[in-house]
Amino acid sequence: MTDPVRPLRVAMIGHAFMGAAHSQAWRSAPRFFDLPLDPVMTVAVGRDAARAADAADRLGWAQSSSDWRAVVARDDIDVVDVCTPGDTHAEIAIAALAAGKHVLCEKPLANSVAEAEEMAAAAASAAERGVRAMVGFTYRRVPAIALARRLVEQGRIGEIRHVRASYLQDWISDPEAPLTWRLDKEKAGSGALGDIGAHIIDLTQHITGDRILEVSAQLETFVKERPTADGDRGAVTVDDAAVFIGRFTGGALGIFEATRFATGRKNSIRIELNGSAGSLAFDFEDMNVLELYDASEPAETAGFRRILVTEPEHPYVEAWWPPGHGLGYEHGFTHQVVDLVNAIAAGTDPAPTFADGLQVQRVLAAVESSSDTRTWQEIPT
Amino acid sequence: MTDPVRPLRVAMIGHAFMGAAHSQAWRSAPRFFDLPLDPVMTVAVGRDAARAADAADRLGWAQSSSDWRAVVARDDIDVVDVCTPGDTHAEIAIAALAAGKHVLCEKPLANSVAEAEEMAAAAASAAERGVRAMVGFTYRRVPAIALARRLVEQGRIGEIRHVRASYLQDWISDPEAPLTWRLDKEKAGSGALGDIGAHIIDLTQHITGDRILEVSAQLETFVKERPTADGDRGAVTVDDAAVFIGRFTGGALGIFEATRFATGRKNSIRIELNGSAGSLAFDFEDMNVLELYDASEPAETAGFRRILVTEPEHPYVEAWWPPGHGLGYEHGFTHQVVDLVNAIAAGTDPAPTFADGLQVQRVLAAVESSSDTRTWQEIPT
Amino acid sequence: MTDPVRPLRVAMIGHAFMGAAHSQAWRSAPRFFDLPLDPVMTVAVGRDAARAADAADRLGWAQSSSDWRAVVARDDIDVVDVCTPGDTHAEIAIAALAAGKHVLCEKPLANSVAEAEEMAAAAASAAERGVRAMVGFTYRRVPAIALARRLVEQGRIGEIRHVRASYLQDWISDPEAPLTWRLDKEKAGSGALGDIGAHIIDLTQHITGDRILEVSAQLETFVKERPTADGDRGAVTVDDAAVFIGRFTGGALGIFEATRFATGRKNSIRIELNGSAGSLAFDFEDMNVLELYDASEPAETAGFRRILVTEPEHPYVEAWWPPGHGLGYEHGFTHQVVDLVNAIAAGTDPAPTFADGLQVQRVLAAVESSSDTRTWQEIPT
Amino acid sequence: MTDPVRPLRVAMIGHAFMGAAHSQAWRSAPRFFDLPLDPVMTVAVGRDAARAADAADRLGWAQSSSDWRAVVARDDIDVVDVCTPGDTHAEIAIAALAAGKHVLCEKPLANSVAEAEEMAAAAASAAERGVRAMVGFTYRRVPAIALARRLVEQGRIGEIRHVRASYLQDWISDPEAPLTWRLDKEKAGSGALGDIGAHIIDLTQHITGDRILEVSAQLETFVKERPTADGDRGAVTVDDAAVFIGRFTGGALGIFEATRFATGRKNSIRIELNGSAGSLAFDFEDMNVLELYDASEPAETAGFRRILVTEPEHPYVEAWWPPGHGLGYEHGFTHQVVDLVNAIAAGTDPAPTFADGLQVQRVLAAVESSSDTRTWQEIPT
Repeated sequence: MTDPVRPLRVAMIGHAFMGAAHSQAWRSAPRFFDLPLDPVMTVAVGRDAARAADAADRLGWAQSSSDWRAVVARDDIDVVDVCTPGDTHAEIAIAALAAGKHVLCEKPLANSVAEAEEMAAAAASAAERGVRAMVGFTYRRVPAIALARRLVEQGRIGEIRHVRASYLQDWISDPEAPLTWRLDKEKAGSGALGDIGAHIIDLTQHITGDRILEVSAQLETFVKERPTADGDRGAVTVDDAAVFIGRFTGGALGIFEATRFATGRKNSIRIELNGSAGSLAFDFEDMNVLELYDASEPAETAGFRRILVTEPEHPYVEAWWPPGHGLGYEHGFTHQVVDLVNAIAAGTDPAPTFADGLQVQRVLAAVESSSDTRTWQEIPT
Repeated sequence: MTDPVRPLRVAMIGHAFMGAAHSQAWRSAPRFFDLPLDPVMTVAVGRDAARAADAADRLGWAQSSSDWRAVVARDDIDVVDVCTPGDTHAEIAIAALAAGKHVLCEKPLANSVAEAEEMAAAAASAAERGVRAMVGFTYRRVPAIALARRLVEQGRIGEIRHVRASYLQDWISDPEAPLTWRLDKEKAGSGALGDIGAHIIDLTQHITGDRILEVSAQLETFVKERPTADGDRGAVTVDDAAVFIGRFTGGALGIFEATRFATGRKNSIRIELNGSAGSLAFDFEDMNVLELYDASEPAETAGFRRILVTEPEHPYVEAWWPPGHGLGYEHGFTHQVVDLVNAIAAGTDPAPTFADGLQVQRVLAAVESSSDTRTWQEIPT
Repeated sequence: MTDPVRPLRVAMIGHAFMGAAHSQAWRSAPRFFDLPLDPVMTVAVGRDAARAADAADRLGWAQSSSDWRAVVARDDIDVVDVCTPGDTHAEIAIAALAAGKHVLCEKPLANSVAEAEEMAAAAASAAERGVRAMVGFTYRRVPAIALARRLVEQGRIGEIRHVRASYLQDWISDPEAPLTWRLDKEKAGSGALGDIGAHIIDLTQHITGDRILEVSAQLETFVKERPTADGDRGAVTVDDAAVFIGRFTGGALGIFEATRFATGRKNSIRIELNGSAGSLAFDFEDMNVLELYDASEPAETAGFRRILVTEPEHPYVEAWWPPGHGLGYEHGFTHQVVDLVNAIAAGTDPAPTFADGLQVQRVLAAVESSSDTRTWQEIPT
Repeated sequence: MTDPVRPLRVAMIGHAFMGAAHSQAWRSAPRFFDLPLDPVMTVAVGRDAARAADAADRLGWAQSSSDWRAVVARDDIDVVDVCTPGDTHAEIAIAALAAGKHVLCEKPLANSVAEAEEMAAAAASAAERGVRAMVGFTYRRVPAIALARRLVEQGRIGEIRHVRASYLQDWISDPEAPLTWRLDKEKAGSGALGDIGAHIIDLTQHITGDRILEVSAQLETFVKERPTADGDRGAVTVDDAAVFIGRFTGGALGIFEATRFATGRKNSIRIELNGSAGSLAFDFEDMNVLELYDASEPAETAGFRRILVTEPEHPYVEAWWPPGHGLGYEHGFTHQVVDLVNAIAAGTDPAPTFADGLQVQRVLAAVESSSDTRTWQEIPT
C-alpha cells in the first residue's frame, strides 16, 4: 500500500443476502490484501428508492439509486456487481458490458441457456475491448476448495475415478413453510437444482479440471402445494431436490444430489474425489478443513489427514490470521473481489468466466431435460 | 441356561473368509445369548479334503468332509450353512432344503435372478414343511443398523424423502492388483455391484421398510486388463464400480454407489436417511455409532446426536459388555445365528428370507440392465 | 438505521495482529448490527510514525499518530482501544480512563497483579463518572461459547462437576524457532500461560459462572535456549507450557493445559463441562459447533449432539448469514465491539470488566507461584 | 496348525464381567492365531458352587468348582487366570505361583502397594523356576494402542513433551445410583482412580516407554451418600474422580483425569502425545482409529491423519478380517491370551509383568497420598 492506487468505482445492483455478502467483500478486500486498484463502494441500487437508500447506508455505499440503467450508464462507475435474482441477470449484465463496465454477476448466470448464451457472447465481445466479466461461484475461493484444486493440478490424487458431491439444506422440509418466489418457476427459474446444484456442478468441474459429459437425473417436488401469504395455498412449480449420475471428460463417474429436504443439514456441501493416487474430501459444515488421503503412504500409517487450511502456505490464507484461526462464509466473497480486481488491473479474464457460467447452465438444462424425458442427456460443448 | 437344551447340529459348506466369520458366530452365540437350541459345530465342508480338515481343526468343527452332497443327506445335520461362492449357492441350498435342513445362505443369494427364483421357490415350499431358510445380510444386525430400523418403525424420522447410500472400498484401485476369480464374471457373477452393492440395497430397503421401484444406473470397469498369475494379462469382466439413482415405494429418492476404487476407503458403508421429522446417518467405519437428528427439537439445541450404540437398551447389546465397550465386525454374524436359532425354535421364518434375497437380486439385475441399455428399469415385484 | 446516530470516535493504540482484528471489528459491526452509536475509526497510533501511517491507511483509520498521550488527550476521541503488548496496558489504559475515555483493553489485562489492581481501581473510579472499561477476552463472543454460557445459565447441564480445558498451539515446537520478544519475560510477562492460558481461565469461569479457588501447577520451558537474530543463542525466560489442576467455587474439579508445543494443534481451544444433567464440549478448531449431551434423554437415543451454531436463535448469529454459513475467528471481535457500544450507549458496564481481568491475573499469578513453590495456591478474592 | 500342539490347561477364578471377557478370549485365540500350545478351558471357579456351575456351562468351561485352593493345587492345571475383585488377587496369585502355575491376573494388581510388592516378589521367584506371571492391562493390546507404541519406538513423534490422558465414564453421575461394593473402600480399595485411572497410567507409561516420576493430585467424592439395598443411605468411601498432573522420566509433562461423572462419556479413554516430530491421538470410543500428525510433512498438506487400524500391517490385525472390518472391546483380551501363550511356550516373561503392575500401584498410591497431603509425591522406583 506504499503507492497511491487508482480507484475502482463499484455499483452494486441488488442489496439482499448476496448484496450484504458482496458489500462486506468490497469493504474488506483492500484491508487484508494489497490490491492494485482501490475499490470505492460508490452506489447501491434497488427497485425501491427508500429501501435502496436504507441499504446503502447500512451496507456502506456512498450513494443509492433505484434506476440501474442510469447507474450502468454513469461515467464514474467502473464495475457493476449484479446481485439481483436470476431473471434480471442477462439484461443488466449485457447492458453493463455494453457500457464498458466490468461485470461481476451472481450465479447461476441466468435462468435459461438462451440467456446465458447471450451473456457469454456479450462477455466475449467485451473482453476484446478489455472489459471483464466474472460469474460469482464464490465457493471456489474457500481456501480448502482452492487447495483441493491445487492438489489435483499437482497430480497428488492421480487420475480421478469417482466424484461424489451433494449440497444438502433443509429449509423447506416443513410442508407448511410458505410459498416464496424461490418456489415459483417464473421467477426463480429452478429450485434446488439451479440454486445449489449449480454450485456442486461448478465446484466438481473446477476442482477436477474436467467437464460433465452426460447425465441421468431425477428431479422431485415432495411438497406440491404450500400456504401463500394471503392464507390460500399455491402450487410449488420448481424442484425440491435433484439427484443425478454422470460422466466426466476424464472418465470419472459422478454422483450428485442437491436438496432442500435434507432434514438437519443446513448448508452441507460435501465433495469427495477418489483418484488413482489418493483422495480428497470436503464438507462446508467444517469449511476450514480439507481431507487428503495419499495412497503412496505405507499402509501402516496411511489415513485421511485432516488438513486445517489455515496456514500461510494455503491459498488466500496468508492475508488473514495465524494458523488455526479459521475463516467464515463471507471470506470467499472477499477472495472473489481480490481475484477480480487483480484480473482487471492485469488485463486478464477472471475465472469463472461467463462461458464457464454458460457451461454450468447447460449442465443444469441437461439435468432437467433428463428428468423430464427419463433419458440420458449429453451436455453440448 | 438352566434347562438342558436340544442340540442343533450344523454343517458349514465353505471355509474361507465367510466360513471364519460364521464359525466364530456359531461358537460365540450360545456363550452370550440364552438360546433355545444348542448349536453343535458338527462338520465343515470344502472341495479339498486336506484343506477342509485343516480348516475344521482351526475353525473348531468336530469333523470335516469334501462331499457336501453326502453331508447334506446326513440324518444328524439340522442346519446347512452355505458360505461358498455365489455360483454354487442355488445347488447346495436347494438340495439342503429338499433334504429337510434349515439353510443359512450367504449373500448375494445367487448369481442370477433365475437361480434366486428357484431358491425362493424351494424355500417357500420348505417353509410349508417347517424348514427355514435365511439369507446372510448380516449388516442388518449391526446394533446401530438395527436401532436405525427401530427408530424408523417408531416414526422418529417421519416420512422418508431421501436415501443416500454408498459402499466404498479400494482394494483394487491399484491397476496392478492381480486378476482374481472375483473379477471374472463366470465365477463371481458381478463385481462391486453384487458383492457390496447388494448390501446397501438390502440395508436401505430394510431400514426404510420400502422397496426400490426403479433405477437408472451406470456401471464402470476402470481397469480393463490386469496381471494374471501366469505373468500374462487378462480381461476384467465385472464392474469395478456402480452408481445409480432410484425411487422407493414410499416416494423417497435414492442415490447409491458401490465401488472398489474409493482410494482410502476400506469398508465404508454410509447410509443417510432424511425424513419429514428427522434424519439418521451411519458409517460402518465408526460402526458403534448412529447419528440421529430430531427435527422436533428447538432450533437452539437441535443437532445430529452421536448415539453410541452400546447401551443395554440397544438391539443385541445387553448380551455383551457395559456401555462404551464397542463391538466389532463379526458380532453381526453372531446376532444372525441368534435370530436364526430363535426362529427355528419358534417355528417362524427368519428374516431376511430367500424371497428378500430374490428381490435384492432383481434390483441388482435391474441396475445391470439399466447400465447396459442406458434406460430406467423397473424392479418387478 | 432509520435515525441518525451519534458518532463514537475511536482511537486504536497498536496496529499489529490485534490491531488488524480490532479494525475489522470496528469496520464491520455497524454494517451487520443496529448500533445506537456510530463508530468512527478516527486515529491509529504506533511508536513509529511512518509505520503507523501505513497501518492507518491499510487498516482503514482516518489519521495516524505516534504519540498515544496526545491522542488520549484529544477532545474528539471517545474510545481508546488498547492493542499494544501487555507491558504498556496499565499506563495507557489508566491515562485514557483518567482523560474520560472509554477503554477497550486487550488481554491479559496487565503483566502483573499489581498493575492489574491499579487498572481495576482506575476502572472502578471511572465507572462512577460514566466512563466504561472492558477487557478483550473475545472468545466469550464466539457464538458457540455464548450459547454454552446460555445453556449453563438455563441449568441445562445441572450442577457442574468437571471442567477440562486446554489451549494447544505448536508454533515453537521446533527448537530452532527464533527467540522473539514473546519468549522474553521482561517484555511478555509470561509465556503460554499468560498468552493463551488466560483465555481458558476466563472462558471456563465465564461459562460456569464460577471462579477458580485454588490451583496446583507445573510450568515448563522445554527449549531453554534459542537462536537470536544476531546468530547467537539466548535464554528463553518464559514458560513453554503450563498444566494445572484446580477447584471451582461451585465444587467442580478443573484440569487445564496451555502449551505452544502441542505438535499439530494450531489453535485448539477445547473446553468440556460435565454436569449432573448433561455435558457441553467445544473445540475452536471447529468453532461453529457446540456439542451438548442431555442426560434426560432416554438411553436409546441419548448422545452428544453436534449443534451447528448458525441459527438465528443463537447468540449474535441473526445479524449474519443463513443457517449453515459459518463465521470465522474475527467475528468474535465484531461482537465485542457491538457489546461495548451497546453498553456505552446504555450507560452500563460492559463485561468482562477490568475487575474480571484482574481476577484472571490473580489466577495466572497463583499458577506461576504454585509451580515455583510446588504447593497449592489459593486465589485471593 | 499342522502339528498337534500340547494342551495348556486353564483354570479361571471369578466369572463375572471379566470372566466373560477372558472366556471369550481363551475360546477365540486358537481359532484366529497359530498358537504353540492349545488352551483347554478346564475349570471355572466361583464362591458359590451352583453359580459357578451355571457360569462354567454358559461361558464354556468343562468343569466348575467353588474351591480355588483345591483347583490351584491340581496337577492338571497349567495356568490360573485370576478374574476376582482386587482384594483377593494377592492370595490367589501367590498361591498359584507357589504351586507352579502360570498366572494371568486382572488389574489393578492388588489393593495396596504392600500386596503388590509381595506379588511381584512371588512372580520374580517363580520366574526363576520358569513360571510366568502377567497382569491384565488389556488395553495395551488394542491394535491402535499397540501401533501407537510401535510408532513411538520407531521415533516417529520424536522426543515426547506432552502426555494427556483421560478415562471418562458416567455410570454413577446420578446421585441416586445405588451404593455397590465398588463404592466401598474395604472391598474395592479405590474408586475411579484404581479402577480406570490405573489403565491410563499403564497405557501412557507403556506407549511412551517412560515412567511417571512425581504427581500432584486431587481426588473427589461428589456424592457422599447413596441409597443402599435395604432402603437406607450409606457412605461412599472411595473417590468418584481423580485429576492429577505429573512428570515422566523422559521429561514430558503429564495431565490425567479418571472419573465416573463425565456425563455422556461411556468408556472414553483418550490419550494424546505431542512430540518434537509429531503427535498421536486415540479415543477408545472410536477404538479402531489412531490419529498421527507427522511434523516432517510440508505445511501445505500436514494434518492429523485418521489411520484405520485394520490393515494386515497393523499389530494383531492380520489374524482377523479384511481392511475396514473393525474389532471390538473383547479382542484385546484375545490378544492378551495370544501373547501369554506365546511367552509360556517360548519361556520368556510376558508383559506387563507383576513388577509393572506394582509400579502402577505405586503411582496410584502416590496420587492418593498427594491428594491427602496436598503435596507433590514422588513415585519410588
